[in-house]
Amino acid sequence: MISAAIIGAAGYAGAELTRLLLGHPSFELVAVTSERDQGRRVSELYPGLASCDLVYGPHDADAVARVAEVVFLAVPHTAAMAVAPTLLGAGRTVVDASADFRLRDPAVYGAWYQADHTAAGLLPEAVYGLPELWRGSLPGARLVACPGCYPTATLLAAAPAVRAGVVVSGRVIVDAISGVSGAGRGLSEATHFMNAADSVAAYKVTSHRHTPEIAQALGDLGLDAPAVVFTPHLAPLGRGLLSTVYLECDASVTPEEVHATYRQAYQGEPFVSVCDPGVQPATGHVRGSNRAHVGVTLDQVTHTLVVTCAIDNLVKGTAGQAVQCANLALGIEETAGLEAPVPIV
Amino acid sequence: MISAAIIGAAGYAGAELTRLLLGHPSFELVAVTSERDQGRRVSELYPGLASCDLVYGPHDADAVARVAEVVFLAVPHTAAMAVAPTLLGAGRTVVDASADFRLRDPAVYGAWYQADHTAAGLLPEAVYGLPELWRGSLPGARLVACPGCYPTATLLAAAPAVRAGVVVSGRVIVDAISGVSGAGRGLSEATHFMNAADSVAAYKVTSHRHTPEIAQALGDLGLDAPAVVFTPHLAPLGRGLLSTVYLECDASVTPEEVHATYRQAYQGEPFVSVCDPGVQPATGHVRGSNRAHVGVTLDQVTHTLVVTCAIDNLVKGTAGQAVQCANLALGIEETAGLEAPVPIV
Amino acid sequence: MISAAIIGAAGYAGAELTRLLLGHPSFELVAVTSERDQGRRVSELYPGLASCDLVYGPHDADAVARVAEVVFLAVPHTAAMAVAPTLLGAGRTVVDASADFRLRDPAVYGAWYQADHTAAGLLPEAVYGLPELWRGSLPGARLVACPGCYPTATLLAAAPAVRAGVVVSGRVIVDAISGVSGAGRGLSEATHFMNAADSVAAYKVTSHRHTPEIAQALGDLGLDAPAVVFTPHLAPLGRGLLSTVYLECDASVTPEEVHATYRQAYQGEPFVSVCDPGVQPATGHVRGSNRAHVGVTLDQVTHTLVVTCAIDNLVKGTAGQAVQCANLALGIEETAGLEAPVPIV
Amino acid sequence: MISAAIIGAAGYAGAELTRLLLGHPSFELVAVTSERDQGRRVSELYPGLASCDLVYGPHDADAVARVAEVVFLAVPHTAAMAVAPTLLGAGRTVVDASADFRLRDPAVYGAWYQADHTAAGLLPEAVYGLPELWRGSLPGARLVACPGCYPTATLLAAAPAVRAGVVVSGRVIVDAISGVSGAGRGLSEATHFMNAADSVAAYKVTSHRHTPEIAQALGDLGLDAPAVVFTPHLAPLGRGLLSTVYLECDASVTPEEVHATYRQAYQGEPFVSVCDPGVQPATGHVRGSNRAHVGVTLDQVTHTLVVTCAIDNLVKGTAGQAVQCANLALGIEETAGLEAPVPIV
Repeated sequence: MISAAIIGAAGYAGAELTRLLLGHPSFELVAVTSERDQGRRVSELYPGLASCDLVYGPHDADAVARVAEVVFLAVPHTAAMAVAPTLLGAGRTVVDASADFRLRDPAVYGAWYQADHTAAGLLPEAVYGLPELWRGSLPGARLVACPGCYPTATLLAAAPAVRAGVVVSGRVIVDAISGVSGAGRGLSEATHFMNAADSVAAYKVTSHRHTPEIAQALGDLGLDAPAVVFTPHLAPLGRGLLSTVYLECDASVTPEEVHATYRQAYQGEPFVSVCDPGVQPATGHVRGSNRAHVGVTLDQVTHTLVVTCAIDNLVKGTAGQAVQCANLALGIEETAGLEAPVPIV
Repeated sequence: MISAAIIGAAGYAGAELTRLLLGHPSFELVAVTSERDQGRRVSELYPGLASCDLVYGPHDADAVARVAEVVFLAVPHTAAMAVAPTLLGAGRTVVDASADFRLRDPAVYGAWYQADHTAAGLLPEAVYGLPELWRGSLPGARLVACPGCYPTATLLAAAPAVRAGVVVSGRVIVDAISGVSGAGRGLSEATHFMNAADSVAAYKVTSHRHTPEIAQALGDLGLDAPAVVFTPHLAPLGRGLLSTVYLECDASVTPEEVHATYRQAYQGEPFVSVCDPGVQPATGHVRGSNRAHVGVTLDQVTHTLVVTCAIDNLVKGTAGQAVQCANLALGIEETAGLEAPVPIV
Repeated sequence: MISAAIIGAAGYAGAELTRLLLGHPSFELVAVTSERDQGRRVSELYPGLASCDLVYGPHDADAVARVAEVVFLAVPHTAAMAVAPTLLGAGRTVVDASADFRLRDPAVYGAWYQADHTAAGLLPEAVYGLPELWRGSLPGARLVACPGCYPTATLLAAAPAVRAGVVVSGRVIVDAISGVSGAGRGLSEATHFMNAADSVAAYKVTSHRHTPEIAQALGDLGLDAPAVVFTPHLAPLGRGLLSTVYLECDASVTPEEVHATYRQAYQGEPFVSVCDPGVQPATGHVRGSNRAHVGVTLDQVTHTLVVTCAIDNLVKGTAGQAVQCANLALGIEETAGLEAPVPIV
Repeated sequence: MISAAIIGAAGYAGAELTRLLLGHPSFELVAVTSERDQGRRVSELYPGLASCDLVYGPHDADAVARVAEVVFLAVPHTAAMAVAPTLLGAGRTVVDASADFRLRDPAVYGAWYQADHTAAGLLPEAVYGLPELWRGSLPGARLVACPGCYPTATLLAAAPAVRAGVVVSGRVIVDAISGVSGAGRGLSEATHFMNAADSVAAYKVTSHRHTPEIAQALGDLGLDAPAVVFTPHLAPLGRGLLSTVYLECDASVTPEEVHATYRQAYQGEPFVSVCDPGVQPATGHVRGSNRAHVGVTLDQVTHTLVVTCAIDNLVKGTAGQAVQCANLALGIEETAGLEAPVPIV
């Protein structure tokens, strides 16, 4: 068993990581930390994790580094870069679910996150952890930057078409819908049941911080001059994220060809399925799982490819992907700890 | 009091029309019909309408024409064109909430609705009932074709920019989210609570029947060669519809200018508000009301205008708009019967 | 028009009062106050009340007394008794939605609310405002203590049987379910969407403050030695409250007799309906309205009468009942401002 | 591996059984049947079970008996007793989730289920499968009758007090709330999202078929002359069931004693927890798991014990309990296949 710890374990992403690591055949969860809930038992905060006897400790990177071989960071941005150097210096593998190591250019980070990057020297070795698209870079990685939830669904939706070279414009429209768990455990007007239930609204239109991350990754996939228009929405569901991506395509491509491109791109992938033509993915079908379901529709009038991708924002969008990356980084079976069938409705 | 009837009164749109007409100062609801619920009392089917003693009668256009001066049609498409000629022949004003008289070209109707138009002779006199955009055509109208719910929100979102001439491409992307009431009262897998709750999915991607209606109206607003890419989604809310519209704009336009254009376009409108810059409309804020709230954001990198419009699909999206059109057609105060403040949460 | 004000207008009960008074034919809302939202416009805080230009002022009882003939109090307990004396001293009619004047015995108040009653001298003239049960006491009342939401539904459920003398035990079990709006606008773990949605739980079992109020009123109805066991639950709905009341009955009573007793008790009531035998009320049917629907079932094996009563906790449970009481106190038509049909689904 | 089959695998209980058996270390799921969905793939009907290649076959008891050593029945009542004799005759172990073998007296069954019992000869050997209360009867059992969802939560709530002899009256009031999954996969008005969401109602008051089952089991626990008043409610959650049970207790018992009684009764139980005094269980905390959380409150004024028990109706209420019983019947570790931590929110 490989010893594992979670820094920032009491938020939703951290708790979901806790759940997945408790059920993992090769990791043994040995430490969890939380500033806010320090001293409380995991099972007290999350009665559904009744089997866990761990107590939240402080965010003490040195202490964590002493007990854990792999450390998952589920803290907000800036808090991750505060602890990563110590952990890496101690020889630990770091899997970061925050935004701190996703953007290669610290200036872009500074502009979008309104914070100076204090560990920019680590950026060159950070590996962007989206296995289905860049699996080869993960084995042996010491520092994994897991993608955001919106980028995960968006890039899985866009990648096959972009890589196939059929996308003719860098202007990509991304219209996405997230469940309320994406807003985190903190109390806010937006997450009060009376505001969140029975209502839907866009937020941070054209200004969401996942925008430059999506653009950077689209460029990595080969898209020329990516310019992303991104509109996230909040809808009254707990978990789930659906990204609808609009790609302007070469006029010669047919629906059959593009569907075949997607099927081929994800053939054999353990966690990604391409829906049959005419079928659309629903977030309810992937709730609780590490799966991504992709729907592909080509509008032949406007040569617009409309790709939808449904994930669970807390699993494939965060904690599940982090485990998948850790598996690959450490040479464990990629699907380990992620295969338990999840409740069906 | 003007006598009014509803043909197809037992579905959600019809019941909402019933509610609005029962509270209307100038209309007296004298007849309601329903094939499925014929013989039942309104108050039995909808206990919330406990004050209504009417009994659903059959879809008998002659009988209805004898008792009502204005007739609202809330039947599915094809059923409306089956009764409209009789009603108009009897001199009645017809306000149709179905799709039968929205598209001017019967061939387009046939292609999208898979049905021959059996009353194409009435199309030239049908008035498209979106008062905020084409108010002048409504006074005296005998046959009003009320827009669909998606077109209503989409056109209110797009019109000011299109009319101002700042939209430089006919390719318009419309990404919209509807509550489950939009799927109607009929039983289906999609509307079963266990499928509809806690999940979101797109449906009829690029093939929804509101597509040609949106394109026709965008052309009427002055857009060259409109080509609409329309993706509707279903989300777990009862009422509410949010349309997010992407318009490619002239590079010289500024956010301030475009916001001013919207403010000016809807100045004095009783039912349409433009949100302050940076504020996004939420469907929860218009639930139960005839209001439309519009949010305007210009992405200066891509010169893309992202406009969101929130309505209640059953009110401004259907029944409220039908009443608003009837008011205008018959020379009543436009806001009559539509002003009661609605529950706040 | 009678001038009206709301002290504590920015919470859910206050906002619902705002809505109802804006649509009331005889009241003119002239002032609203809020400590927290002082200086904000009503239409900013509640976009659904877009037609309201009022700005929240401070809780200044003197200032309010100068402009309003009737004052509604929608502040928490203790805050109501702080302003009531001033308002009454100025000759105003006070309709209090808080708990401060419901319990006749200040010692009971002190024991359950952990606060000394600072206006106990007003208790003798406070009228308990449940019109269907004690209508006669309301005309001319200067100080109305509106019942809590749970007592309203519970007493409407229990009263006909108690008054008919068929209840043979003072031990009454009340098991009730409330929507989340009942927990108020404040932020809390319990009202976070991720906790409130998709979950149900009891709270304050046997210790909820509505317990002594229910017991006092059951005694007033004629029940000997009332002993109430009260279990409230929170369920994932916005509005709505269902009280299920268990009454031990005389063995000789039949289901037909008890149903007839209920029908007769509420015959002619504008806001209370008794369901047909075998039919159960649903909160969804009264959402947004001032109605109460009552279902009556007698278990002949155990001689237990199981009565369910569904109300909208913010309307008949709070704001609507306050308006109904104000109407009666001031000699206005009892149903004024409460009759607009509400959205049907 | 022990070969297992599910007859009636396409409903919610059957699908949940499918999920649990797919993840079970000792069972190999070899056959699933469904009348309605015969010929479809499990992964098509339930995309969340994407890893399952099985195809639904017909309800052919002979064919199933040939391939499976243990057979789970998730068919409606009467359908279970139609296949059980064949399966038992072939030497198979039968774990029945229907009501057919729960009631010992076929006359009671006939009266409540309006059907003659066609396999009454098997009733004497049927074992009531609630391991925490009657664990000893399960090893080696050939025919297990799993309790209904309401009886499971209700009996876990009542048993410790009844067995301790502190309950002084046979009249037990059970007020319970279920999520919509309890109503099954079939389409109905009640499960339409627009009726089920944002509403709560009681149903089958005093006439629900779980009533005699609860009474029989309370008698088995030692309660004299059990007389159950049972009111089930439907609330807008997907999964989850909360039973609130009212027990009249000996006046001498204290809250501390009764809490200790519960703690002791469930000490060491892998799936049952007793909440700390003052804490109430929430269904959200057991969603997806086989756990039951129990809250205990003694009202010292009325000597009424109010016990709440939260379970997931599809897991501990149906499929999970069936697996737990099968484990015990076949000598496998009781918790096998039921321990995977479930999503935390």
